[in-house]
Amino acid sequence: MQISVEDFVRKNEQRFLDELLDFLRIPSISTLPEHKPDVARAAHFVAEKLKAAGLENVEVIQTSKHPLVYADWLHAAGKPTVLCYGHYDVQPPDPLELWKSPPFEPTIRDGNIYARGACDDKGQMYMHIKAVEALRAVHGGNLPVNVKFLIEGEEEVGGDSITTYLPAHREKLQADVALVSDTEMFADGVPTLCIGLRGLIYLEIQATGPVRDLHSGIFGGAAPNAVYGLIELLAKAKDADGRIQIPGVYEQVQPPDAAEVASWERLPFSAEEFRKNEVGATALTGEPDQSVLARIWARPTFEVHGIAGGFTGAGAKTVIPATATAKVSMRLVPGLDPEKVLGDLKRWVRQNTPKGIQTEVRVLSCGPAVSVDPHHAAIEVAARVFSEKLGRETVFIRGGGSIPIVGEFAKDLGISTVLMGFGLPDDGLHSPNEKYRVSNYYQGIETIANFLAEYGKLSPNR
Amino acid sequence: MQISVEDFVRKNEQRFLDELLDFLRIPSISTLPEHKPDVARAAHFVAEKLKAAGLENVEVIQTSKHPLVYADWLHAAGKPTVLCYGHYDVQPPDPLELWKSPPFEPTIRDGNIYARGACDDKGQMYMHIKAVEALRAVHGGNLPVNVKFLIEGEEEVGGDSITTYLPAHREKLQADVALVSDTEMFADGVPTLCIGLRGLIYLEIQATGPVRDLHSGIFGGAAPNAVYGLIELLAKAKDADGRIQIPGVYEQVQPPDAAEVASWERLPFSAEEFRKNEVGATALTGEPDQSVLARIWARPTFEVHGIAGGFTGAGAKTVIPATATAKVSMRLVPGLDPEKVLGDLKRWVRQNTPKGIQTEVRVLSCGPAVSVDPHHAAIEVAARVFSEKLGRETVFIRGGGSIPIVGEFAKDLGISTVLMGFGLPDDGLHSPNEKYRVSNYYQGIETIANFLAEYGKLSPNR
Repeated sequence: MQISVEDFVRKNEQRFLDELLDFLRIPSISTLPEHKPDVARAAHFVAEKLKAAGLENVEVIQTSKHPLVYADWLHAAGKPTVLCYGHYDVQPPDPLELWKSPPFEPTIRDGNIYARGACDDKGQMYMHIKAVEALRAVHGGNLPVNVKFLIEGEEEVGGDSITTYLPAHREKLQADVALVSDTEMFADGVPTLCIGLRGLIYLEIQATGPVRDLHSGIFGGAAPNAVYGLIELLAKAKDADGRIQIPGVYEQVQPPDAAEVASWERLPFSAEEFRKNEVGATALTGEPDQSVLARIWARPTFEVHGIAGGFTGAGAKTVIPATATAKVSMRLVPGLDPEKVLGDLKRWVRQNTPKGIQTEVRVLSCGPAVSVDPHHAAIEVAARVFSEKLGRETVFIRGGGSIPIVGEFAKDLGISTVLMGFGLPDDGLHSPNEKYRVSNYYQGIETIANFLAEYGKLSPNR
Repeated sequence: MQISVEDFVRKNEQRFLDELLDFLRIPSISTLPEHKPDVARAAHFVAEKLKAAGLENVEVIQTSKHPLVYADWLHAAGKPTVLCYGHYDVQPPDPLELWKSPPFEPTIRDGNIYARGACDDKGQMYMHIKAVEALRAVHGGNLPVNVKFLIEGEEEVGGDSITTYLPAHREKLQADVALVSDTEMFADGVPTLCIGLRGLIYLEIQATGPVRDLHSGIFGGAAPNAVYGLIELLAKAKDADGRIQIPGVYEQVQPPDAAEVASWERLPFSAEEFRKNEVGATALTGEPDQSVLARIWARPTFEVHGIAGGFTGAGAKTVIPATATAKVSMRLVPGLDPEKVLGDLKRWVRQNTPKGIQTEVRVLSCGPAVSVDPHHAAIEVAARVFSEKLGRETVFIRGGGSIPIVGEFAKDLGISTVLMGFGLPDDGLHSPNEKYRVSNYYQGIETIANFLAEYGKLSPNR
């Protein structure tokens, strides 16, 4: 007698959880050079677990930065192929002092796993591997669909290596659809598919003023200050309402169509609860003539992620700083060409650099927004199994974040991506105390297994 | 036969230099808690050297922070008393990588001593001790004037302890005039007395936005950003020409009188050389309708000394920062009441804090501008001996920096201060590669000895 996926998951839930906790203990912070060995360790962990789940042709592919991990199982003749993507690298955990338990010592509290990467993306990526393991167990060692896995370790640092790898391995990676679990559910219990993602340009802007730090008593009033010059420049990027002032940015924006806007209005969303429970500030900001969901999904942004310059130790030091640096990004929406916006932005920096200051722009990443047709066959199957699992209609939303690989799958492999995530809005991605709910982990494994099985019933290349 | 001060200095110049180098090796950085023992060590060094120079009643006075050092020699009956002031603490040396030789390993290159504190103020303060030693040597163990020394270790961190000590020890510290060598010559070879100093308000402004760092993809466009909010606030402090926009600040400014302005025009000063050789920027900044000397001597400033917030490590992290902090100061000129300006500034911060952001202001120091009458008897003696030593007319200038103690001597002890400094404009105070010219050190010792001797010929209480 064949057992169900659900039974298999229930029988193995402690082991599935323990394996994920082991994975989360590896501080695979891709942006910090001192963690390079940890990132490599995480790649090998993934490769081992793919093998253990019964996948074949497992490879740890060296790149100029962090390894890619590939695996496949291609014995479901006449059935379609799903390319499962995820990333095993994580964001830095700082500020460390705000974590209630250490970021790389995963801790279960109130039904949640607290750890850096618990949700983004180790916890979600690992569900794919366990879904395949469960499917093989209930299908007598076979799978009802062909699968390929491509897992990267540079998602948090721009993903250069996979961007290079994709177009050079079109044949190897050929598939009918990609599956990515790196998004979240719109609200607890609401099955959600993401059909649009913003793009991202990420820059460092460095300002220099005097040739060295100067005494502000002796020179103050006549010498340019690099920190203040950078402040003056950046403050010009937006007006008091948050409208971007860089010429040309809004002109090309493709607004969402009326049906999509109408569907957003039906979502269980309260701007006031969003402000209070998720943002935790005294007020929301941004374009007053746009709804909050439009601001975070369908409008470009200009954000300063960090700034450093001058004396920032304890006490007082009266210097006029010689240099200052800011990390700056713009999120892009459909219609905006990243190269054009980057050009507009660089020109704006040049034209608005204050007197006595020199600026230099370094581009760290640059990728477009993407959107997926909600009527794609795989999306329809995903919406159905997700609805069945959670007992509620699946909603279609956009994501404000960027998953550049989705655009690259479309461009290089000609395939759409199912963005089926199981995170919750308060999971704290990129923040202290990132978490992932344990029950969502199991639910995700089951839903993904069901999706793969149901999608396998379709003909390839639909 | 009595030898001259000059002969004595020449005979002892190697020892005088070696002693100063030993003093400079002590990293007495008053603002950094980890250097507290070094600051104490520097205090004891000063006390030892005062004793060795023949001063009496030498005390290392414990305070709530860093010690004061007191000493006196009061056997010149019927002669006036000079209160010698200086400070043995120094600024932090960072950025360390810009120093050509380590900041606390004093190195002689091209006739200059390179070390943190070489000029500000260890090198200059130590001249007073050596001047007294030289005078006693040439006056058979006596002095031609009464002297008191009060040396502090908190000048670079606001000077709280001496501010408390002064009014409580008026009798002990009573004198006819104070002597401070913590200023510079207007140009190489130009004997210079400083007769005006700007005051200083120094603040930390902290901004908070969301309750925690947020993912800029998920929240960007609607969530306030603490770094950007602080940038928006600070950018409003000045217009593009550098005019301070905080209401009320310029109204009370007492402009310099016509004679003083005319004397500035006779000084050997070129704005273009100042820009090129001292500031090293592509342009000077500040109020276009004010001369460069007026901007740095007679106009208030608003300066950001440092800013920190968000992610500033290597690579890219897409956070919306929850907090950001800036170190901010305003330099004050005659006419401006520090408490009133501080009130105006705090009100301005409250009124200009952007939507969704909360700000907190912490005051680190707050002191007024001071000015000295150029016709004071001690100033006239100082101008004369300085002219004789350098063979050139003494000029009267202002200083843009703040020496709060000068105002406190006036208020608490009712005495004026002779500000007779031997630094040069390119000595790099508060900067990497701070230096002090060796020949100026010897010249300073001789000039100060001559000043003390000549001033001793006047009646007390002139």
